[in-house]
Amino acid sequence: MDLADTGAFARVGIVGGGQLARMSAAPATALGIALRVLAPTPVDPAAQAIADTVIGRHDDLDDLVRFAMGCDVVTFDHEHVPPAHLEQLESMGIAVRPGPAALFHAQDKLHMRQALSDIGVPSPKWSRVPDLATLAQFADDAGWPVILKASRGGYDGRGVWRVESLAAAADILEQPLADGAEWLAEECIDFAQELSAQVARSPHGQAVAYPVVRTLQKDGICAEVVAPAPGLPASRAVAAQELALRIAKDLNVTGMLAVEMFDDGYDLYVNELAMRPHNSGHWTIEGAVTSQFENHLRAVLDLPLGSPAPLAPYAVMVNILGRDVGDLPSAYRHVLARDPGLKVHLYGKAVRPGRKVGHVTVLGHDVEELLARGRHAADYFAGVIDE
Amino acid sequence: MDLADTGAFARVGIVGGGQLARMSAAPATALGIALRVLAPTPVDPAAQAIADTVIGRHDDLDDLVRFAMGCDVVTFDHEHVPPAHLEQLESMGIAVRPGPAALFHAQDKLHMRQALSDIGVPSPKWSRVPDLATLAQFADDAGWPVILKASRGGYDGRGVWRVESLAAAADILEQPLADGAEWLAEECIDFAQELSAQVARSPHGQAVAYPVVRTLQKDGICAEVVAPAPGLPASRAVAAQELALRIAKDLNVTGMLAVEMFDDGYDLYVNELAMRPHNSGHWTIEGAVTSQFENHLRAVLDLPLGSPAPLAPYAVMVNILGRDVGDLPSAYRHVLARDPGLKVHLYGKAVRPGRKVGHVTVLGHDVEELLARGRHAADYFAGVIDE
Repeated sequence: MDLADTGAFARVGIVGGGQLARMSAAPATALGIALRVLAPTPVDPAAQAIADTVIGRHDDLDDLVRFAMGCDVVTFDHEHVPPAHLEQLESMGIAVRPGPAALFHAQDKLHMRQALSDIGVPSPKWSRVPDLATLAQFADDAGWPVILKASRGGYDGRGVWRVESLAAAADILEQPLADGAEWLAEECIDFAQELSAQVARSPHGQAVAYPVVRTLQKDGICAEVVAPAPGLPASRAVAAQELALRIAKDLNVTGMLAVEMFDDGYDLYVNELAMRPHNSGHWTIEGAVTSQFENHLRAVLDLPLGSPAPLAPYAVMVNILGRDVGDLPSAYRHVLARDPGLKVHLYGKAVRPGRKVGHVTVLGHDVEELLARGRHAADYFAGVIDE
Repeated sequence: MDLADTGAFARVGIVGGGQLARMSAAPATALGIALRVLAPTPVDPAAQAIADTVIGRHDDLDDLVRFAMGCDVVTFDHEHVPPAHLEQLESMGIAVRPGPAALFHAQDKLHMRQALSDIGVPSPKWSRVPDLATLAQFADDAGWPVILKASRGGYDGRGVWRVESLAAAADILEQPLADGAEWLAEECIDFAQELSAQVARSPHGQAVAYPVVRTLQKDGICAEVVAPAPGLPASRAVAAQELALRIAKDLNVTGMLAVEMFDDGYDLYVNELAMRPHNSGHWTIEGAVTSQFENHLRAVLDLPLGSPAPLAPYAVMVNILGRDVGDLPSAYRHVLARDPGLKVHLYGKAVRPGRKVGHVTVLGHDVEELLARGRHAADYFAGVIDE
């Protein structure tokens, strides 16, 4: 389809067919931006919702080129595209945002740790772990337990272990690693809460910072988010925003950046980076003037960014996880009838245990009431409760 | 695509490929509802944004049947489907909402006038006009000017004339009428403002009423909307909502109903009905907990309705109209940079003079400031101003 026939002024290509690409469709349509996705199958979440879907693999260069031709900029639903493929796209004159060099920080945790240490970002102690002896030395300094991570290939808690002893670590270090991955040890921070600071940054250097949110992880998966983080002192909230803005600038990130942090009640320690819309920002769809999905599109197109201001005192987002039980359609009528103020987002996925299949968001004044409403809806969808 | 592969629990078909179908995509995706549209061409606004598009005509029964097979319910982007075709779909067991009998009130203005009079809804004086003599008699009673309307086939001010004399009316009455149309005369109400009251109603009888809004028409086209109508006494706002709820019930409307009214400062007079999402409700996308597009989908599927509560003290919506001048893409950067709080909706249409090509919405406290921001953006997009 020729852009001139549609009034659209640019085409953005998103690699990956998951829920992040799916939720980008609404702001793309509103802004008159043509959206194309590269998805492995026609029933992937984004493929269902986006008319211009190219079926193909993110790790196949031919598929990537076929998809990218005609796009004004290529961006991502996930971090799994091989860096060499992205460099190849760039060498063909295709704009890739975030660029391969920036994105590599989100693809390789050792690279990220080294870069953050180089620019003086507060982080847990960390060490490359070529062998058990190095780990023993690291644990003498940082103490047990230690967080062991594969430097590449993990997500949603996969590829991350909390180990209490050298013996337990030895078992893990025997596991095979993904291509190019190494073992990384990190100090286990005794945190009071986990925070996420999101910023959008555009190629010409404009940046905006969203309110800092509190995240709750269960089994390594984001379970719920409160925006803004309740009771977080203003000084620490500003420090978290400044950290995220500095990382975005120093690592030359374009698009959305999520900086996940540990807050031990005194200091902040950077845990992970994501260079795309992030689970901790789903609340912005209803809860902010400009959603993370809209600002990601505006940023990668180098358009002026939208206001990240919140629309209500608090927003609560709770993920819907698949369970053995649970039947989304039959839960639907009950959940909607019980709470007319609830915003439901389903991702068009078949239900499997532990799989993120959607989320709910509620806005209001009273955090405890919002959490109760959000958790009830998510539990009811999951079949954990039936009243 | 089989619904079972996607997690979607129902498929809604929308007849028509315009911006109303296009703006339904976002809530359908969020709710996990599969959406299909029947659009005349692949570059229609909705066809660009909705993966499951059937190309065909709304007045071709074969196209309608091909489109409707596999849909759980069929609804509308416009009122132009021939009633006999809808009855045919119903006779084949396809759910049509609003049903043909209800929808006919929005298709034929004489039928609407008679029905509203029958149920005692306050309306301008009106009369069928088979000839000039009847019109003369009507004007003797209602006074000049008189509003002349073709009972069928008009929209956005087409098919409506304000005439000052019998001689002027005679010229108009000579014009050919659409098939089945007749001439209708209505009293010209000397209104202080125009209002729109929107309600959603579901087949099992649940209904919700949105805040009553003030609309401003220019050349018969909705130009701007303020929600809620500033300064409207609570008693008259409630009266308008009750009128709309009563009309929805008595005419057995399912889905969204917009009741456009004249307010002369004392009384309300019903002007027009629309049984679908309506231009006067575009502000609800950002300005209400549940948008008109989401509640239309929920209503036609007989799901529980969402809260129509506003999210800010005021919302202002201004339409972007095409002009001879004006170039949307080049205006984009300026408009977004000037006002980071602005929400832009473009419809994916080629620009033509007088054509609605998009709208902007702003939320806040100060109506005059919001109007200034909205008008500036719309004028800049249209090329009417350049700074």
